[in-house]
Amino acid sequence: MLGLMQNWPLTVDKILDHAARWHADVEIVSRSVEGPIVRTTYAQAHERARRLSNALARLGVQRGDRVATLAWNTARHLEAWYAIMGMGAVCHTLNPRLFAEQLCYIINHAEDKIIFTDLTFVPTLIEHRAKMPTVKHFIVMTDEAHMGAAAGLEGALCFETLVRDASPDFEWGGFDENTAAGLCYTSGTTGNPKGVLYSHRSNFLHTLVTLGADVMGISAKDTVLPVVPMFHANAWGLAFSAPAVGAKLVMPGAKLDGASVLELLESERVTFSAAVPTVWQMLLAELREKKAKLSTVKRVVIGGSAVPEAIVRGFRDEFGVDVTHAWGMTEMSPMGTLSSPNGDVAALGAEEQLKYKLKQGRVPIGVEMKLVDDAGGDLPHDGTTFGRLLVKGPAVVGEYFKGEGGEILDAEGYFDTGDVATIDAHGYMQITDRAKDVIKSGGEWISTIEIENLAVGHPKAALCAVIGAAHPKWDERPVLLVKLKDGEAASKQDFLDFLEGKIAKWWTPDDVVFVDDIPLGATGKIDKKLIRERMKGYVLPTAQPAKVGA
Amino acid sequence: MLGLMQNWPLTVDKILDHAARWHADVEIVSRSVEGPIVRTTYAQAHERARRLSNALARLGVQRGDRVATLAWNTARHLEAWYAIMGMGAVCHTLNPRLFAEQLCYIINHAEDKIIFTDLTFVPTLIEHRAKMPTVKHFIVMTDEAHMGAAAGLEGALCFETLVRDASPDFEWGGFDENTAAGLCYTSGTTGNPKGVLYSHRSNFLHTLVTLGADVMGISAKDTVLPVVPMFHANAWGLAFSAPAVGAKLVMPGAKLDGASVLELLESERVTFSAAVPTVWQMLLAELREKKAKLSTVKRVVIGGSAVPEAIVRGFRDEFGVDVTHAWGMTEMSPMGTLSSPNGDVAALGAEEQLKYKLKQGRVPIGVEMKLVDDAGGDLPHDGTTFGRLLVKGPAVVGEYFKGEGGEILDAEGYFDTGDVATIDAHGYMQITDRAKDVIKSGGEWISTIEIENLAVGHPKAALCAVIGAAHPKWDERPVLLVKLKDGEAASKQDFLDFLEGKIAKWWTPDDVVFVDDIPLGATGKIDKKLIRERMKGYVLPTAQPAKVGA
Repeated sequence: MLGLMQNWPLTVDKILDHAARWHADVEIVSRSVEGPIVRTTYAQAHERARRLSNALARLGVQRGDRVATLAWNTARHLEAWYAIMGMGAVCHTLNPRLFAEQLCYIINHAEDKIIFTDLTFVPTLIEHRAKMPTVKHFIVMTDEAHMGAAAGLEGALCFETLVRDASPDFEWGGFDENTAAGLCYTSGTTGNPKGVLYSHRSNFLHTLVTLGADVMGISAKDTVLPVVPMFHANAWGLAFSAPAVGAKLVMPGAKLDGASVLELLESERVTFSAAVPTVWQMLLAELREKKAKLSTVKRVVIGGSAVPEAIVRGFRDEFGVDVTHAWGMTEMSPMGTLSSPNGDVAALGAEEQLKYKLKQGRVPIGVEMKLVDDAGGDLPHDGTTFGRLLVKGPAVVGEYFKGEGGEILDAEGYFDTGDVATIDAHGYMQITDRAKDVIKSGGEWISTIEIENLAVGHPKAALCAVIGAAHPKWDERPVLLVKLKDGEAASKQDFLDFLEGKIAKWWTPDDVVFVDDIPLGATGKIDKKLIRERMKGYVLPTAQPAKVGA
Repeated sequence: MLGLMQNWPLTVDKILDHAARWHADVEIVSRSVEGPIVRTTYAQAHERARRLSNALARLGVQRGDRVATLAWNTARHLEAWYAIMGMGAVCHTLNPRLFAEQLCYIINHAEDKIIFTDLTFVPTLIEHRAKMPTVKHFIVMTDEAHMGAAAGLEGALCFETLVRDASPDFEWGGFDENTAAGLCYTSGTTGNPKGVLYSHRSNFLHTLVTLGADVMGISAKDTVLPVVPMFHANAWGLAFSAPAVGAKLVMPGAKLDGASVLELLESERVTFSAAVPTVWQMLLAELREKKAKLSTVKRVVIGGSAVPEAIVRGFRDEFGVDVTHAWGMTEMSPMGTLSSPNGDVAALGAEEQLKYKLKQGRVPIGVEMKLVDDAGGDLPHDGTTFGRLLVKGPAVVGEYFKGEGGEILDAEGYFDTGDVATIDAHGYMQITDRAKDVIKSGGEWISTIEIENLAVGHPKAALCAVIGAAHPKWDERPVLLVKLKDGEAASKQDFLDFLEGKIAKWWTPDDVVFVDDIPLGATGKIDKKLIRERMKGYVLPTAQPAKVGA
C-alpha cells in the first residue's frame, strides 16, 4: 500500500524559487572579477537565471546536455548553476587549478557544449580552444564593456547581453527528481579523472541534511561566505543551502587571500564561513598582523584536509570563533562527517572537547559509514583500530560517469572512500591515512600521516614524508624522508630519538633518509606517488640479505 | 539523463538504525503508565522494536496492514511505531480524547488488525470491544504483572511477553519509499473523520526539514521532551527527529500537568520541548507558584492553537526561555510554519521581534504556501490583506484514505488548509480565522477571531464569540455573543464602546447578544457550529424589514 501524500519531486530549481518567493530582498554580494563589489538579491538572481535558461535554450541546450562552468564564486556563477540545472541540463563544474591537459580531457570526456567562464580564464581557453571540439560557445561572465579581452576566443558570448536579451518566462523542473543536475570530476591519483554525476534528488537531499543543526546548521539569520569554491565539491552545498534558508550570501570572487577575505567578513557582517585550512591559516595571520577583530563571525567550518590544532585554538581563544572540522569528498556531494559535539562531548571541558573537534567527526542521518578490515569484516569503534572507511547514502556516488572504473560499490552497496580511519566510542571518525599510503607491516597497519605529523614537529625539520618499503619478513616497513630546514644538520638517530615514546615501538621507521625536496601536489598535499617513483631503487637496511631473519 | 548517485530509499526504519548505530547509549526516559520512571537506550529500543516486528509478523501482520496505537508518549510507544513501520505495515495513531463512537468509526474505517494500547484505555476498549470486529488483538503496553487489568479484553496480549519471546533478527525496509507508513485521522468539523496516509518518504523528508536550524533545529546535544502527543499530529515529528540526531528523549507518559512536566524538565535536564499553549500555561503557573526555575530548558515550541502573548513574555522575561510559535496540521505531517526570526527581524529590538514571534511564522524549504482570494487570485503579502491559505509539498496530503472527500487539491496541486490568514512582507503568516467562520460582508472579509480576542479583553467578559448573521444588503454582518463573568452586568453599548477605535468601523458588530453559555469543543476551541445551530432563528436588528436600506 502506498501513502497518499503529494508527489513533489525534489528538484533544485525549487530552492531558488523558495528563496525568491520568501527571501526576495536578501542580498547576494559578490566581489566581481572586474573589481567592484556587486549587489543583487535572490529575486533578481531568480529572474536572471531564468533569462539565462532561455538564452541557453536558444543556443540549443537540451535536457541532459552538459554545460560547464570555469568560474569563481560570484552571483553570476550561482545564476548559471540554477539556469543550467533548472532546465534539466547538467552543470559541470571545472576546476581552474587543474593543468590545461586535464581540463581538456575532462571537457572532452563530458562532451561539454557550452562553458561559462570568468575573464580570468579566457587566456587559457584561447590557448587550448582547438582541443575542445565539443564546445560550441563560451559565455564570458561579464558585460559588453569587458568583452574585449575575449576577442580571440572563438564562440565567445557576453553573459550580461544574453541575460538582457532573453525573456524571464521559463518553466523550470517538471522532470524526474533523479535527473542529472551536476557533474564534477575527481582528480584521482590513479587513472584518468572520473566524473560524479549528481542528481536533483541527491543535491536536494544533501541540502536538507546539511541544514541540520549538527551539520552546517545555517539559518535565515546568517550571512554566509563560502570561501570554498563552487568548482570544488560544490562549495560544500552552500550554493543550495544558503538560498534554501534565505541566508545572505557573500561571494568572494577571485580574491581568497587573508586581507580580502577579512575585508568581506567585516564589511558584510558575515556570521558563517567555510574553507580549507590554508585559507584560515592566512586569515589568522592577517588578523594577528592587523591586530584586527572578527565582529560578527560565529562559526567556521574547515575541511578539505586535516585541520591543525593551532587554527582551532587561535580562532577559539583569540577571536571567539567556533571551528567545526568537516570531512567529505566529491563522491559524497560532498559532506560526510562534522565534528559537532554530541551530548557526552558537549559535557566535557574545553580542552577535552578539543580532541574531538580535531577529528573528522560524526555522520548525520543520511550518511551510512563503516570501518572494515581487508576481508570486509566490521572493526570496533574504539578510537584506535583503523581500517578502510566505507560509505553509503542518497548523496553518495553509485557509479562514475560513462561507467569509468566499473562497479564501484560492494555487495552491500558501500562505496570505498579510499581512506583509512578510526571511529571512537562517541562515533567520531578520524582519518589516519589514505588506503594506498598505509603501511602493512606483519598484517598490521601503520599510519604514515601520524608519523609524519609527529616527525615534522622536530625543530630542524621543514617537511617529512613516510612511505612503506618492501621487507622480506614484514611485507612493508616505514621509511621516514626528511627535508631539513635551510642550514640545519641532523642525524638519523636524532629523528628516531625524537619519535621514541611518541609512537608504538613497531611503528618506528626502519630508516631515515634525508632529501633535498619533498614534492607537493596541486592541492598542497605531499605527492607520495612521485616519492615512491623516486625511491624505486631503494632497499631498506633491514631488508639487506645479511639481515634477513634478524 | 539520470544522475548516478546511490539508490537509497527514504524509509523511516533507517532513522532508528542510525540512532542505534551512532547514538547507541543515548537514553529514552519514560514516565511509565504503571508509575515509575523507566530508562532505555536507542540501541535497546532498536532491538526491542525488531523483536516486536517479529511478534507482529507471527500474529499475521503483513505489509500494508493497519496496526493502531492508543497510547501516551513512552519508549514502548516509540518501539511500537518503528516495529510497525519498519516491517511495512501502517501505524495508525488513535487519539484517546475522541468520543468512543468516533474511535470506533475510525478503527473500522481503517480496518485496524491490532491495537497497541496503554493500561489507561483498557476499560474503554473492553466496553466497546464488540464494535471493533476487524481487531484481532490488543497488545497491552505493560508487563505480565500488570495484565490482570486486561483480563476482560478479548484478544489481549502482553507487550513485554511478546518482546521477550521474539527474535531480534528482522530485516526492516526494502520496500518502495512511497510505501504507507502512518495513518492519522483529522476530526473534521464537517462530515466523518478523514485519514491522512503518510508515506515513509513523506515522514523522512518531514524529518529532514524539521531538523533545520530555523525549524525545530534539535541536535545531538539536546534533551527533548515531546509533551505534544504521538497521537496528535505525530508529536510534530519528534519521534523521528530526536533519534535522527541522537538527542536524548524524555517521554512524559500520561502526566501532562504542570508539576509533572516541570519535574521531568528539571530532573532530566531537558533543553527543548514542544506542546500546545495550555500545557505551557499550566507550566508557567506551576513555576510561579513554586518559585521554581528552569535550569536547562532553552527553547520551547508552541503550536496547536494561537499562542497568547503573556506566555511568550513570561517564558522570556521570567525564565530566559525562547518561545517559537509553530503552525501546522495533520494534513501537513504536521509542520507548516515557525516564527523563527529571519535576518531583518533578528535585527529588531526585543519588543518589535515579539510581534513576529506571535505570528504563526515562515515556511521552511519543502513547504509551498500561498494566499488567495475566493477566485483563486494571488493576494499581496502586506500583513493586512487576508485570504485562503493554500499549501503544497512532499509532506502535504494528496488525497484522504479511501478517497474520502474526493479530489482535494486544486489544479496547481495546492491543498486548501481551511484557514484564512495574512502574510507580511517578511513572509510571516498569521492565521486570522477559519474559512468557514470568516464573515463576508459586502465582498470583504471580517475575522471573527480578531473581534473575539479584542472583546474578551473587556473586564466583564468571560467568553466571547463572533458569528456572521444574514443581512439583505451586506450578505453577512457580525454578531457578538458575550458570556459575562458571574455576577456582572453590562449593556450592548458597553461592548460597542469598548471595541470602538480598536477595529475598523465596518467590522463593528451589528448586534451584541448576552448568553449564558458559549460551547467549547473537545480541543477547547469555541464550537461555532453549535453556536450557529443555536442561533438559527436569530435575525439581525439591522436586517429587520423596516430597516432595509438604512
